[in-house]
Amino acid sequence: MTTTRRQPAARRGARAVRTGRRAGDSGTREAILQAAREQFAERGYDGATIRAIAAAAGVDPALVHHFYGTKERLFAAAMQLPFVPSEAIAVALADRPAGQPPGAHLVRTALALWDSPGVREAFVGILRSALTSDQAAAMLREFVSQAILAPVASLAIGTDPEQTPFRTSLVGSHMLGLALTRYVLQLPAVATADADALAGAIGPTIDRYLTGDIEDGDVGR
Amino acid sequence: MTTTRRQPAARRGARAVRTGRRAGDSGTREAILQAAREQFAERGYDGATIRAIAAAAGVDPALVHHFYGTKERLFAAAMQLPFVPSEAIAVALADRPAGQPPGAHLVRTALALWDSPGVREAFVGILRSALTSDQAAAMLREFVSQAILAPVASLAIGTDPEQTPFRTSLVGSHMLGLALTRYVLQLPAVATADADALAGAIGPTIDRYLTGDIEDGDVGR
Repeated sequence: MTTTRRQPAARRGARAVRTGRRAGDSGTREAILQAAREQFAERGYDGATIRAIAAAAGVDPALVHHFYGTKERLFAAAMQLPFVPSEAIAVALADRPAGQPPGAHLVRTALALWDSPGVREAFVGILRSALTSDQAAAMLREFVSQAILAPVASLAIGTDPEQTPFRTSLVGSHMLGLALTRYVLQLPAVATADADALAGAIGPTIDRYLTGDIEDGDVGR
Repeated sequence: MTTTRRQPAARRGARAVRTGRRAGDSGTREAILQAAREQFAERGYDGATIRAIAAAAGVDPALVHHFYGTKERLFAAAMQLPFVPSEAIAVALADRPAGQPPGAHLVRTALALWDSPGVREAFVGILRSALTSDQAAAMLREFVSQAILAPVASLAIGTDPEQTPFRTSLVGSHMLGLALTRYVLQLPAVATADADALAGAIGPTIDRYLTGDIEDGDVGR
């Protein structure tokens, strides 16, 4: 594999694009993923570019695009996420039952995704990094903002656009807390609850955060 | 300090109780806290006992009680938590405005506690441990259940007692997610929001989780 990585970038890129997935590919892919992990860690999610990742891996940017498509897909592959968040959210939004608020369906979708193999490990790994360095926390913050909160923002229909970041961050905050208590802390009542119970309880909260009244600051002072 | 720790336990304990806090105390206290950290990590929060911690530190259990009072206070000291959760919650409940649901007040109290010096570091340290080993996760789960969820359960007034663990775990889940996104991930809209805005948005959710309708499982399927 080391020999493969030392070939001129352009030539190797061209070959891999032409020949598709075969022996040399897995080494090239691993070199790209390793370069991606390093670049994301050093420059954050926003700051890392496919061009810089390709350069660090010694391959042509076109090859990275060929293998991974978008920066988000590359990030998901580098972090061993078994799905691409913004794509999963897009599918969930397209699938949701007509005429109903989206909260319960979003909770069910998230639970189904989180329960797929490898997700818990990826979540724990990313979160542990974020707890270990400010840089990793920034990377996760930028990724969550772009890949998760931005698509969710389309659901804050009919509300003041200035409130949107707060609304989507409340949703993100609650869902991250749910993942943390269900899969890491494993509080029994949340860890063993079925998807219907959690969707029934948390769905209406998500709906209120997205489109309901969230200004009630005089209460309970 | 090593010499001090090797004195017979009973004699050292008796001396420390008689003489109050002076030169030898800090070494004894550190030995107790170190033993506590080890015992909590090995046996969990429920399994660790003051007696076993005292034995591991080579001191009399009465001395541990004298210095720290309760297991929860000892845990808080060992984990460098600057407050004792169940006591802080008891104060918050006693202070809350009459005739109003408790959610917003609880959110404000939590934010004030979390903003005190040292809390973020302690939270990050404990959470990082929980993400690193199942044993540490179990310890945190037991501590959260006993020191935080149990006192909060007194607020689930007039509801089916069988639902109480689910209700309080939903509250814990949301509040942990808030701490994670405000202090670790630092999602801008949540990290910079003032206490009133967060209490206004999240308070009513906490109230619904404690006493409202949380069974709505047919929605959004």
